[in-house]
Amino acid sequence: MDLGEFKAAQERAQDVLRSAGIVLTDEEAAHIEVADLGLNRLAVEGLELVTYINNDRYCAKELVLFPGQTCPEHRHPAVNGQPGKQETFRCRSGEVWLYVEGEPAPSIRAKVPEASKAYYTVFHEIALRPGEQYTIPPDTLHWFQAGPEGAVVSEFSSRSTDENDIFTNPEIRRETVVEN
Amino acid sequence: MDLGEFKAAQERAQDVLRSAGIVLTDEEAAHIEVADLGLNRLAVEGLELVTYINNDRYCAKELVLFPGQTCPEHRHPAVNGQPGKQETFRCRSGEVWLYVEGEPAPSIRAKVPEASKAYYTVFHEIALRPGEQYTIPPDTLHWFQAGPEGAVVSEFSSRSTDENDIFTNPEIRRETVVEN
Repeated sequence: MDLGEFKAAQERAQDVLRSAGIVLTDEEAAHIEVADLGLNRLAVEGLELVTYINNDRYCAKELVLFPGQTCPEHRHPAVNGQPGKQETFRCRSGEVWLYVEGEPAPSIRAKVPEASKAYYTVFHEIALRPGEQYTIPPDTLHWFQAGPEGAVVSEFSSRSTDENDIFTNPEIRRETVVEN
Repeated sequence: MDLGEFKAAQERAQDVLRSAGIVLTDEEAAHIEVADLGLNRLAVEGLELVTYINNDRYCAKELVLFPGQTCPEHRHPAVNGQPGKQETFRCRSGEVWLYVEGEPAPSIRAKVPEASKAYYTVFHEIALRPGEQYTIPPDTLHWFQAGPEGAVVSEFSSRSTDENDIFTNPEIRRETVVEN
């Protein structure tokens, strides 16, 4: 991702949050995380994040997804004898379609990203509109995509350790590289 | 608290949340918690709460304070060898003045509730406006009061076990009794 795309995504994410009534400090706005996951197709696969707090016991973030943007399939495994990260996703604005392990939907609302089709393997569908939420157990494969309006999702969870996340797509790198 | 006062507080809290851009499901709105703490002076001491999730690992709530309303001083002690509840308060709308252990402010912005004056003992002041947040360590005395516009505060924390909270005022009962 180049610096222009990174900055544009930060500004757009801030606008989306503002429209959802969510206020950031200037410092938080300047540090909105833009994650393209090393795939370099942010509009299709990636997300924008603000981490409010992440300590040994709990974590809270806002996730921003632009229209149709997808967070690729991954799971949070047990680490050092601790159960994997458990997450509650609460939709704040727009609509998000969440896919987890379990009975697959006969047809799904999301459009699986074409270039990575092989790396989407779970299709139990949960659609979340504002005020609706879902809790994902530890070590459970999941991925999610925003509907046509995009989405803001609050994530409440146990401690977040991104470096331990296991993505189904082996090409994914959690750390974003911005080229100047 | 009588049923009329309880219902009115629920409706008012829902309006405040709506104005802050926070959407509840009908089920959540019907179960907004109105806590008068057994003191029967809700406008002065009490608060309104929506608990989104509370499990063994983490908890997330919205707290609503009407203008000038105060959550009385308390702490979250260690229980069964586990450290006490740790909380991050993030102001979403309005203004809240938070008081914790530490260097007392020379003069404080809040008005200490007259009838319970003896039970407010910590005066280190943190003022939070939208987008600002503060993390309270476990087992630390704290209380908070909304400014003249009221406040919505998101609380991110470790597991919540209200029954273990220790209030400085021995008259306080955490469970609300609504009389028909």
